[in-house]
Amino acid sequence: MDPADLTAARTGVAGTAPLVQCLTNTVVQTISANALLAVGASPAMVDNPHEAADFARIASAVLVNLGTPHDDTAEAMLLAVRAAAEAGTPWVLDPVAVGGLRWRTDLAAELLELRPAVVRGNASEVLALAGAGAGGRGTDSTTSSDDAVDVADELARRTGGVVAVSGVTDYVTDGATGVRVGGGHVWLTRTTGAGCALGAVVAAYAAAAPGLVGAVAAHAHVALAAERAAATAGGPGSFATAWLDALDAVDDLAAADLR
Amino acid sequence: MDPADLTAARTGVAGTAPLVQCLTNTVVQTISANALLAVGASPAMVDNPHEAADFARIASAVLVNLGTPHDDTAEAMLLAVRAAAEAGTPWVLDPVAVGGLRWRTDLAAELLELRPAVVRGNASEVLALAGAGAGGRGTDSTTSSDDAVDVADELARRTGGVVAVSGVTDYVTDGATGVRVGGGHVWLTRTTGAGCALGAVVAAYAAAAPGLVGAVAAHAHVALAAERAAATAGGPGSFATAWLDALDAVDDLAAADLR
Amino acid sequence: MDPADLTAARTGVAGTAPLVQCLTNTVVQTISANALLAVGASPAMVDNPHEAADFARIASAVLVNLGTPHDDTAEAMLLAVRAAAEAGTPWVLDPVAVGGLRWRTDLAAELLELRPAVVRGNASEVLALAGAGAGGRGTDSTTSSDDAVDVADELARRTGGVVAVSGVTDYVTDGATGVRVGGGHVWLTRTTGAGCALGAVVAAYAAAAPGLVGAVAAHAHVALAAERAAATAGGPGSFATAWLDALDAVDDLAAADLR
Repeated sequence: MDPADLTAARTGVAGTAPLVQCLTNTVVQTISANALLAVGASPAMVDNPHEAADFARIASAVLVNLGTPHDDTAEAMLLAVRAAAEAGTPWVLDPVAVGGLRWRTDLAAELLELRPAVVRGNASEVLALAGAGAGGRGTDSTTSSDDAVDVADELARRTGGVVAVSGVTDYVTDGATGVRVGGGHVWLTRTTGAGCALGAVVAAYAAAAPGLVGAVAAHAHVALAAERAAATAGGPGSFATAWLDALDAVDDLAAADLR
Repeated sequence: MDPADLTAARTGVAGTAPLVQCLTNTVVQTISANALLAVGASPAMVDNPHEAADFARIASAVLVNLGTPHDDTAEAMLLAVRAAAEAGTPWVLDPVAVGGLRWRTDLAAELLELRPAVVRGNASEVLALAGAGAGGRGTDSTTSSDDAVDVADELARRTGGVVAVSGVTDYVTDGATGVRVGGGHVWLTRTTGAGCALGAVVAAYAAAAPGLVGAVAAHAHVALAAERAAATAGGPGSFATAWLDALDAVDDLAAADLR
Repeated sequence: MDPADLTAARTGVAGTAPLVQCLTNTVVQTISANALLAVGASPAMVDNPHEAADFARIASAVLVNLGTPHDDTAEAMLLAVRAAAEAGTPWVLDPVAVGGLRWRTDLAAELLELRPAVVRGNASEVLALAGAGAGGRGTDSTTSSDDAVDVADELARRTGGVVAVSGVTDYVTDGATGVRVGGGHVWLTRTTGAGCALGAVVAAYAAAAPGLVGAVAAHAHVALAAERAAATAGGPGSFATAWLDALDAVDDLAAADLR
């Protein structure tokens, strides 16, 4: 993958300010909105069943994250995704903690039929979503991204979209081509919502640069920002703050660690 | 407007620690509570229908923000506002994203009849609330505050309260007198919830200094803190942190940029 | 109490990474999750009625915080606590604003019958929970922890667990032995969710070190981190960030101020 294409995607996000509707968990709404603002996108958290579909029709992209679903937000997710699918708007599925918990696993399966442009999760979640694993331990993966490569490829072919598996090294595939994105920093895993915010950034990129390039660029952007932030941070609290500063500052993805 | 009156209002907030009940969106609850604590007020986020009215009867002020309404919180908003109105307690309406979204626009119209002490929104929202515009794009205004001056004046006369239109320059009016508050910093628009937190601070000021003076003082306080924060911040993440520090530190509003 | 036991508890948390299910208020979910990550625990905010009990069966500890209860989360709390009680999993009750508000006070009384391993609140809340007071003013206590000593001792004997009363000096008791934990910093009271995050940390410690030692260690850890953070912070915003860094850095509780 040509790094110039990644930088073009990053420039595209900044230049078009995609409006990203987030139906996401309440723990991470703030950091997700701030991450979107930092990369130059525009967040909107319209997640009630009365308005979710109407907003999805005008959004540039939609994120559905299953971290803390409730009856009304789950209904709103289905309505928003159906509207997005009808409008041809890309949407991203983040199947948080899918596998061990029956209700959200069924919900994720129903959503998956509506063909997300990108699935982003950790290895345990992607394996469980694909029907190939039992899921992890809350938001922690109990499996490496390497173990999910074949399943991710297959899942991408099934949805016709991109599947991204987060881990020490991320694996991003469209079913034909798989790209590993290295770098990042362990403190991302010590910052609540960093992975979920990555899902939101993936949605912003999906609006500006469809397919594999946008998804890889989103992962590269987040990883480069994490490296830059870790260089100045004194712990997980100051890391989160510095990471938002760095998401804003990164305007070139040429240094991405692609494998 | 005499800057000494603004500083007196700021001293009044610090001296009385108004108890501000916030029925606000889940994205911004944290920064709103922290902004209230930073200016010396006391936040309480009681937003369920079982308790909202009872709490409104003992609160010093009530904030209603329509960012992420759901059936139960919308019901709680109406109950809290009716109780506040009966008790003579000032309440603030922040009509987030009103205009394009039908359900919350109807809710805002119903709330408006209960005569908020202050309406605070961006130009698109204020125009839509007044029935004079179609609304913006999520939380982004597509209109300058200057375009909303006449509508804001008229709306203030209709409610008998104050209307504040946020923008590069804010416009605050009681229908007879209009004051422009400059300063601030563009990073406020890159910090999720900064505008919503301003709404919460406006409620705290409404308890300590009714009418135009309190509303202008709240805007001046937030703007001065933003300028101070921007002088030391390295990006939007560190700006948000520094802004909370500065909200706490600002104890004199003499430097407010009033026009 | 031997400081070496406290440090052993701290090491136990870091070594076992307890999975803490938090059914807590939406204002403080983020700081609670980040505090848990900072001390080395693993947070999971599963708070819907469909999944709360199933998750409680695999969690290491459960936190129930009554800050912003709604019908569905209140139902989830009861389901999670019953499952935790059946599984012998320790759970912590944080009775936020109990006393003045009838609905949550009734809910707290119902939860209390299920025998929390630890109750953590301010003096007004503990007095109200025990039926000995009218409650405070939102999350602010109107009473010192010293005034709640006898009631806390009695409540601990009634539940068979530990009761912790937060204040300038914290009082932690199992009904037989009472320990005062000093230190900390006033900026904890200016950081929204710091007390609620303490409740989450108490749950993590309850999984690693049952009884009085774990509860005292959690309070000592939070207090020592606050002192360290205050030494570098410039206000309440930078304090919150520095406190998370310090929660991560504190690995020895020998300096705890026990009385």
